[in-house]
This record gives sequence, structure tokens and C-alpha cells, in this order.
Amino acid sequence: MDFEPRATRKDMTSALSNPEFFSYGVEAYEACKKLSLTSDIIDEQKKVQEADLVIFQFPLYWFSVPAILKGWMDRVLCQGFAFDIPGFDDSGFLQGKLALLSITTGGTAEMYSKTGHGTLHFCGFKVLAPQISFAPEFVSEEERKGMLASWSQRLKTIWKEEPIPCTPPWYFGQ
Amino acid sequence: MDFEPRATRKDMTSALSNPEFFSYGVEAYEACKKLSLTSDIIDEQKKVQEADLVIFQFPLYWFSVPAILKGWMDRVLCQGFAFDIPGFDDSGFLQGKLALLSITTGGTAEMYSKTGHGTLHFCGFKVLAPQISFAPEFVSEEERKGMLASWSQRLKTIWKEEPIPCTPPWYFGQ
Repeated sequence: MDFEPRATRKDMTSALSNPEFFSYGVEAYEACKKLSLTSDIIDEQKKVQEADLVIFQFPLYWFSVPAILKGWMDRVLCQGFAFDIPGFDDSGFLQGKLALLSITTGGTAEMYSKTGHGTLHFCGFKVLAPQISFAPEFVSEEERKGMLASWSQRLKTIWKEEPIPCTPPWYFGQ
Repeated sequence: MDFEPRATRKDMTSALSNPEFFSYGVEAYEACKKLSLTSDIIDEQKKVQEADLVIFQFPLYWFSVPAILKGWMDRVLCQGFAFDIPGFDDSGFLQGKLALLSITTGGTAEMYSKTGHGTLHFCGFKVLAPQISFAPEFVSEEERKGMLASWSQRLKTIWKEEPIPCTPPWYFGQ
């Protein structure tokens, strides 16, 4: 199966709800409601709908699913089909179904006991603190400008920053 | 940029080292050493080599990078270019470089403080314990048969299993 992993404008077969500014999430949601998603997505959604148990069988690539499967998740599990806001977690639209990840790895179990070093650290990168811009679509123009300004400001002295310890809890303040 | 995310046989422009059994990781490693990776990968590797700081700017899709960027990591950061065994983490081949994730989200910060529910749980799935087959390539034929047998055995009574709590530490015994 040669599933297309890229989430693009081609996934919507009808006119965009906002042709001025393309937001994939917004347009996929609208297309899902209008039944105008592209056929490869709809075919997969039908399979999910009919399944009681979905087994994701994959080789672990960089501590996660391979891109083709990530693209399946990105494109098939769209808002309106798999969830809504509200309508997620225990009220997600796929409630009543079972999922299972069946994973093969390249390395032995010992190699994975040392979790916490991600792709980048593994390759030798020193990793700087992430720059996270929360929901730029939903904040005011002024706040968006603030986001850009602080990012721009940070970039001026970025060479002076110290890398972070590469452990997952660092992210999202967990 | 319309980068190809799928890791396939097309990534190697020369003969495979094992035409009987295709292993992407093995063949990418060999092709990298023989300088016979496909040109879109080599072009990206050159950019990485020349960079002191790589900024990954992306919208968060399902708690991770979009498939197109996951595919960039899967294909560009191959063994022989980005790391070797040994030759990872602090001795990874990209040592001396800096990396930074610059992320925009669809949801507000509050939505992400409740980490631990993954894609599947978010959509309402009850998630069963993962089936992890460590390094099937590197174990004996007998052990491989054992892996298949235990998987097959498990599937017989899978409908009786209870779902797991959807928190990341569950995986890999962290």
C-alpha cells in the first residue's frame, strides 16, 4: 500500500471554506462534514468504522511510527470523523473500538531501556529549548505579533543559549 | 517543498545488498556508504552538514511532527550519515550542531497540560497493551518463530484483554 502521507490542499475535493488562508485542520474538518474529503481518506475511514479492533503493525522508526503511518493518522483521523471539540478521549468518535500497537524494533530491548534521548540527540545534536507558539490561529493579531517578536528576539542571541537535557518531561512542563 | 515522506526501495539507486529480503535500514546504510542514496536525500543531508543550527518549524499534528517532517527524519537521518552503532548520542555524527523545535499548536496551552493521552485515546479508542517484537532481524529463526507464536497465541484471546491506562510511561517500562 502506497498511502499518501502528506496532508495537503488536495485532500479537499470541494471549494475551501477560507481560500484566503489555508489551514489544513480547519479545511479537513469542513470537508469531512461536507463528505468531500478525497477518496483515499474516505476508504480508510470506512475501514476504521467497520473495525472492532485496529492493529497498527509497524517497525519503530525514530521512536515512533514510520512517516507513512504518521500520515495515515494525520489524514484519516481528522476532526469530524475521529473526534470533535468537545468529543474526544472517552467521548471520541471511535469509542467502543480497540487499538493495539504491534511494533518491531531494529535494536534490542536494552537499547530502548535508555529512553529519553530523541531522534536529534541520538544523532549528536545539542538541542535548544523548544519554541512553542500555542494556537496562533485563535489569538488576537496583537498576540500573534507578540509571538513573532519574541521568537525574533530570541533568535538574536540564540548562539548564547545552553542546550537542554534531552528528556521527554522537559516538553510541555510535564 | 513537496518532500517524499515514504521510506522505500526507491531511495537506493544501486543494487541492493540483499535482494532476497528488503530491510530499509540495512539498505539505506549500505547506500549511504556507497554514496548511492537518491538525490533528494543527499540534497537534504548536504543542508544539514552545512548547518550550525537546524530549526524544525512545524504545526503539531497528533502530538508530533507532521508526516512530511517525520519522513524527512526517517529518510535523511540514516545510519552512516547521522549516526552509527557505535556513534550516537554524544558521539552522533551531527555532534557540534544545534537543533531547535519551533512548534505551533492548534489547541491552547491548557489542552496540552493534560499529556499522556495519545492519538488513539484522543479518538476514543481503548488501547490494548502493545505487542513489541524486539530486533526480529537479529535473533535466531527459533526466537522469531517464538515471537510469531506468542503473537498468534495472544490474538486468540485478545477480546478478553483489558485496555491499558493511556500514559506514556506504560511504554518501554519507563
